[in-house]
Amino acid sequence: MSDANPSAKTGPLYLDDLHVGQRFVGGSQRVEADAIKQFARQFDPQPFHLGEEGGRQSMFGGLVASGWHTGAISMRLMVEAVPIAGGLIGASGEIRWTKPVRPGDTLHVESEIVEVRPSRSHPERGLVAVRSETRNQAGELVEILVAHLVVPRRPA
Amino acid sequence: MSDANPSAKTGPLYLDDLHVGQRFVGGSQRVEADAIKQFARQFDPQPFHLGEEGGRQSMFGGLVASGWHTGAISMRLMVEAVPIAGGLIGASGEIRWTKPVRPGDTLHVESEIVEVRPSRSHPERGLVAVRSETRNQAGELVEILVAHLVVPRRPA
Repeated sequence: MSDANPSAKTGPLYLDDLHVGQRFVGGSQRVEADAIKQFARQFDPQPFHLGEEGGRQSMFGGLVASGWHTGAISMRLMVEAVPIAGGLIGASGEIRWTKPVRPGDTLHVESEIVEVRPSRSHPERGLVAVRSETRNQAGELVEILVAHLVVPRRPA
Repeated sequence: MSDANPSAKTGPLYLDDLHVGQRFVGGSQRVEADAIKQFARQFDPQPFHLGEEGGRQSMFGGLVASGWHTGAISMRLMVEAVPIAGGLIGASGEIRWTKPVRPGDTLHVESEIVEVRPSRSHPERGLVAVRSETRNQAGELVEILVAHLVVPRRPA
């Protein structure tokens, strides 16, 4: 864990500052029933995201958060923890939802650089793959995201 | 296009009702600057999602929507258009953001079944891969999502 959050010392990180195995530990966020329902009404209006009764009648047995909500909360925690120069700009991602997020869960994210690849066509930048695990308060994995980010090289 | 939205006639669709090549055409949604900023404040607080000035100073040259916001809007359009029995329950997905979404863009989603696979371990269900393309009002592709959904078999 000694390699976590090196940015606390070094400021925004360019492609040149990143290496495979580098880790970032984010904060945590509690997910309330009201937030689950509000997100669902706006973006994912399915009975098991909209209310307790719809959840009970579903395969989940209770209210659960939209996977997009879990993804968005995880993004918030990553934005605060991973200080890439120019921001976290995703070109693509692979996401797995491994366990439902339920009201009262507290989510936590840890991220690790798994690939650093300078661009051939754009020498001023590169692609960085970041694997982020989102866990609940019991340490259970709820989401795995591998995001492919566009990251600038340090200006000469 | 004659195969689009067969559900209008057949109601909720079970695994047995789905086949590769089946298509679903969703509605559309206009993305306003205020909605982009509100989503950003909650889930993706980066300068190019939070306001016009931060956008102008970024590689985007203007305010753009969070990729998670584009994903969530696309989910909304899919939920309304793809009537899978039991709901759209994603186990995993691969997402590509191919072009930024800007204020005033109107998004539209079309989905196609690309794989139908009965489960060996759970005979009462299967996995269905759905490829969804999100386009703006100019027909430009802004997002491609391949979602792997858990879908029940029709009860005997």
